[in-house]
Amino acid sequence: MSEPLGVAVLGAGHMGADHVRRLARSVAGARVAAVADPDRARAQAAVAGLDGVRVHADAHAAIAEPGVQAVLVASPDHAHEEALLAALARGLPVLCEKPLAADAEAALRVVEAEARGGRRLIQVGFMRRYDAEYRRLKALLDSGGLGRPLMLHCRHRNVSSPPHFTSAMLISSSVSHEIDAARWLLGQEITAVTVARPRPSSGAPAGLLDPQLVLFETEDGALVDVEIFVNCGFGYEVACEAVCENGSARIGDEAAMVVRSAGRAQQEITQDYVVRFADAYDREVREWVTGTRAGHVTGPSAWDGYAAAAVAEAGARALGDGARVTVNLAERPALYG
Amino acid sequence: MSEPLGVAVLGAGHMGADHVRRLARSVAGARVAAVADPDRARAQAAVAGLDGVRVHADAHAAIAEPGVQAVLVASPDHAHEEALLAALARGLPVLCEKPLAADAEAALRVVEAEARGGRRLIQVGFMRRYDAEYRRLKALLDSGGLGRPLMLHCRHRNVSSPPHFTSAMLISSSVSHEIDAARWLLGQEITAVTVARPRPSSGAPAGLLDPQLVLFETEDGALVDVEIFVNCGFGYEVACEAVCENGSARIGDEAAMVVRSAGRAQQEITQDYVVRFADAYDREVREWVTGTRAGHVTGPSAWDGYAAAAVAEAGARALGDGARVTVNLAERPALYG
Amino acid sequence: MSEPLGVAVLGAGHMGADHVRRLARSVAGARVAAVADPDRARAQAAVAGLDGVRVHADAHAAIAEPGVQAVLVASPDHAHEEALLAALARGLPVLCEKPLAADAEAALRVVEAEARGGRRLIQVGFMRRYDAEYRRLKALLDSGGLGRPLMLHCRHRNVSSPPHFTSAMLISSSVSHEIDAARWLLGQEITAVTVARPRPSSGAPAGLLDPQLVLFETEDGALVDVEIFVNCGFGYEVACEAVCENGSARIGDEAAMVVRSAGRAQQEITQDYVVRFADAYDREVREWVTGTRAGHVTGPSAWDGYAAAAVAEAGARALGDGARVTVNLAERPALYG
Amino acid sequence: MSEPLGVAVLGAGHMGADHVRRLARSVAGARVAAVADPDRARAQAAVAGLDGVRVHADAHAAIAEPGVQAVLVASPDHAHEEALLAALARGLPVLCEKPLAADAEAALRVVEAEARGGRRLIQVGFMRRYDAEYRRLKALLDSGGLGRPLMLHCRHRNVSSPPHFTSAMLISSSVSHEIDAARWLLGQEITAVTVARPRPSSGAPAGLLDPQLVLFETEDGALVDVEIFVNCGFGYEVACEAVCENGSARIGDEAAMVVRSAGRAQQEITQDYVVRFADAYDREVREWVTGTRAGHVTGPSAWDGYAAAAVAEAGARALGDGARVTVNLAERPALYG
Repeated sequence: MSEPLGVAVLGAGHMGADHVRRLARSVAGARVAAVADPDRARAQAAVAGLDGVRVHADAHAAIAEPGVQAVLVASPDHAHEEALLAALARGLPVLCEKPLAADAEAALRVVEAEARGGRRLIQVGFMRRYDAEYRRLKALLDSGGLGRPLMLHCRHRNVSSPPHFTSAMLISSSVSHEIDAARWLLGQEITAVTVARPRPSSGAPAGLLDPQLVLFETEDGALVDVEIFVNCGFGYEVACEAVCENGSARIGDEAAMVVRSAGRAQQEITQDYVVRFADAYDREVREWVTGTRAGHVTGPSAWDGYAAAAVAEAGARALGDGARVTVNLAERPALYG
Repeated sequence: MSEPLGVAVLGAGHMGADHVRRLARSVAGARVAAVADPDRARAQAAVAGLDGVRVHADAHAAIAEPGVQAVLVASPDHAHEEALLAALARGLPVLCEKPLAADAEAALRVVEAEARGGRRLIQVGFMRRYDAEYRRLKALLDSGGLGRPLMLHCRHRNVSSPPHFTSAMLISSSVSHEIDAARWLLGQEITAVTVARPRPSSGAPAGLLDPQLVLFETEDGALVDVEIFVNCGFGYEVACEAVCENGSARIGDEAAMVVRSAGRAQQEITQDYVVRFADAYDREVREWVTGTRAGHVTGPSAWDGYAAAAVAEAGARALGDGARVTVNLAERPALYG
Repeated sequence: MSEPLGVAVLGAGHMGADHVRRLARSVAGARVAAVADPDRARAQAAVAGLDGVRVHADAHAAIAEPGVQAVLVASPDHAHEEALLAALARGLPVLCEKPLAADAEAALRVVEAEARGGRRLIQVGFMRRYDAEYRRLKALLDSGGLGRPLMLHCRHRNVSSPPHFTSAMLISSSVSHEIDAARWLLGQEITAVTVARPRPSSGAPAGLLDPQLVLFETEDGALVDVEIFVNCGFGYEVACEAVCENGSARIGDEAAMVVRSAGRAQQEITQDYVVRFADAYDREVREWVTGTRAGHVTGPSAWDGYAAAAVAEAGARALGDGARVTVNLAERPALYG
Repeated sequence: MSEPLGVAVLGAGHMGADHVRRLARSVAGARVAAVADPDRARAQAAVAGLDGVRVHADAHAAIAEPGVQAVLVASPDHAHEEALLAALARGLPVLCEKPLAADAEAALRVVEAEARGGRRLIQVGFMRRYDAEYRRLKALLDSGGLGRPLMLHCRHRNVSSPPHFTSAMLISSSVSHEIDAARWLLGQEITAVTVARPRPSSGAPAGLLDPQLVLFETEDGALVDVEIFVNCGFGYEVACEAVCENGSARIGDEAAMVVRSAGRAQQEITQDYVVRFADAYDREVREWVTGTRAGHVTGPSAWDGYAAAAVAEAGARALGDGARVTVNLAERPALYG
């Protein structure tokens, strides 16, 4: 394929607009063919300066544009399922921002629809799999050099949570990244969840159970603990230490300029995931475009999206009373073998 | 007091011999007056080159030596209670290596005996309180600059466990340091324990549940997680991150010479707690000698020793079935107010 | 301009092939229109899988291809002047890999030719100006927050030098990056050079004066020292510490995964500048393409290329006898204001 | 010797008082027998709370006290020679704070006097040889594992300089530590000095040439560069990187608690050499006391003190005009073999 891949971007919010910029500036071999957002002004703003982009209020209309060969879903969660099914119906490859769908049940319907089609078209936007440090850790674990992984210690901190963020969303929206990363790094499904939590920070909105300490058990007996603290106040931090039988490996301690002044040696902490994972997003979209043009999907699958949703739902139940909740996944279709 | 403090050291094993050396070489104002060990040859070896030290097989005989003004207990755990009661009976100040006694019940008897005497004579050897980094963390938390502490993340790793180490000893012998450190750093009692654990490392002796992830809850709603891994194979590591409402503080990432060679930047990891905490042990004994000569006890009390034992016993029960176990402490005597 | 920018890439060696890949994969808005290399097979290999690229043995033919709107020079140093003059003659924007020309005299001819044209068309490939850490340091220095810079301490290490590398090339080829970085960071010209050197490493080829310690003085009295060691054996390292009146700032201590194993905490050291500065190269070419399409040149100028060459030549003389050599620059044309 | 070593401390200023405290609190096997200071009140204050210390205004009287078996010289530089000769005359071991004497000529007289006596009695207080990190670096270099050392990069920074500090004192008083450290680490004499310097910091007192970059050459062709900056404003920092044929090793990046707050990860920087090298001072005095009681001197010799003075004087001359100055040492007496 020598022509650039025509992509319809659904959603022109924070992530959608970022992806439009990315496709237009940092990714070769693609072009933004259409953008859809119910807020047409927002969509227009996102494509300002770009030629040949059709703007729609309706996702279906964008997908149906001539020249659209692939879809990037960055619309609100509840709109994912319908958009994905529409793309599947047209046989279009999709990169869908996480979550795959609004809940595990909807995610399973998407999985089943894709499985019926017999062909992988969907990739879920778990961008950590494209982060250089995560990839290094994955390669090390896969090499077997440190032996079997026993524990993952994860930290996930945000400066502050967006409005309307709920206690369950600490797991479903934030920890979902660790759920996917743990499944991917360990190559195992998660089988049970427990949530412990201290008295909430007074820096968190009233009623929000923030921070939490989420524990996952895997089918091969590994243990994953995740500190999630979405109103830590001081920065965006994502770190992971894998403790294995013969050693440990830690990622996420970003390098930065060290400034010595006024009795302190200090480094700035990244404030935002778009900054922290900018390269990962670039690489994700670049590999997706390259793969799609070559006819294959290599990233996280719809099944990964479903499993993350199912684990997150178990986590939300575990949050309720502090008890251990087992995760019951549907049977995995052969397509995701 | 211008004469050096005459100290009877009970036990001439690894720690006892180390304390003899310390009193003789690194602490001013003290002298080893007597050493007791059932293995007299070992006791003789420990005092080789020192003048004026009386060697006994029996602890009571050492305590009763003329010139003995204070006692340092470094004998096996089961011998602590009897030695402590003997020292109390004579009104002698004691520095007792942890644990205070063989179990919580025995520890409580010691507490009660000291309380009956109405005067604090016993200090327990939780040496982390004398480590420069722990002190810095304690000072920071006490300053209130980071707000209320929400969580402590602790790592405690040993190269390998000694023979006969049991799964419960990971908590009672190793995590007891974190129990004391958490109580001290937070200024709160621990109220409940849960123990999670992955499938044991194949590097651990058969049957040993190693590693474990131990969770403590405190009376003010802080959460403490401790990775204890006594056969990690690569080094002795003790680290602690306090996550507070307005920031976090981390200690335990030792500085060391960075060597760049053969494609790697590397630092040696300390292999041994005697090396890692050498300065803390020195400071502990030095402050104990100075305080004792001035007539007061400032370090961890018998109550701290009892509380650590009671929490560790709850931990051992929690290890059994993974359930949450509450900690029930005896009433605290006014002496420890 | 909505059509992608047609770029002729001159030279299909290591850097040239890398730039072809970059234009084709990581830069939006550009396409490789032509490639020239006397070794046509090498040129063919570089464009394998790309459509619509014309391959030539001759640089002039590539530049003259219809559809060529800009030129990227990655040919051998001695071929730069002719290629640049040809591009200037056609009014084509050029991104020229450093050095600007084979020597300072040739570089000055290029400067004068561009100045006669009255319009900036040439950018020199000093990619460190596009490195995130260098940019952060530049922004900090420009902010004035640390006061006037007094010294820069620079380290520049390579695993091993290519064949035929000479003692003078340590300065002209390697330290030229620090020359440009220092001029840019400090916003000052370099006025004198001294070269000190230890007895050469036995790991360097016989006769090569490696390592060297190069000292630069600037017009405002700052001092720059550069360790250049091109056969250090263990990795590719570029670091810089700016010491200012009110503090210091250090960059170049790359973050990486920390692996603890076998008594060591270790991090991999990057082995190659293409890896270390991959993002900087991407950003450089991306900004050049974007700027060029918008009609302006923002990067390092031909004057910067000339100044680097003049300073490097002074350095080569200083290497001879260890004496201090002053730098005499030609008058700066108004174009470079 | 079972009695503690009776030490006369000459000088009760900052360092003298610190040594009195050290001998009384942190060093076993010694006691302060006498203290001398022209300011008797200051001497009295230094020994407050200690029993059995005789206080004198005159150094000779203190040395002559019965019970004085060794001397610790912490008086002003100009008083060293006389004190040392007096101690030598009485055959008393001496620990002399650096410098050995007021200038190289006086230092040589001390060397010759000791050499005539045929027995090493003098140790110079270059305490870095007792710092754990310097010792680790020394052991690594001596092991040969990194091959021949080629360069040392040293940083020596103070918050601010004391009153009356002169430009030459940056070398004679501050860099003298690096002079000794380099000679010791490399096991070589220094043969030439060059001093480069930027325009002085506006944070330094008017007229003080601060900072400076001092270059040393050694007899085996190693190169040592030292940044000395005594009014850096932000902290006390001492670091050293040894660049060898097969790798490099860096010390001096102190570990400390990392606090994350308000968008920054920060560590406190030590403000004072007494704090930074507290353990080194303790170890120095402890080993000196132990060695002295056993009848031998193991630390830096009078020759080391003389060589440091001679190199520093060459440095002061080099500071004048920026030219390279060779160091001419007297012949080394056989005593220092």
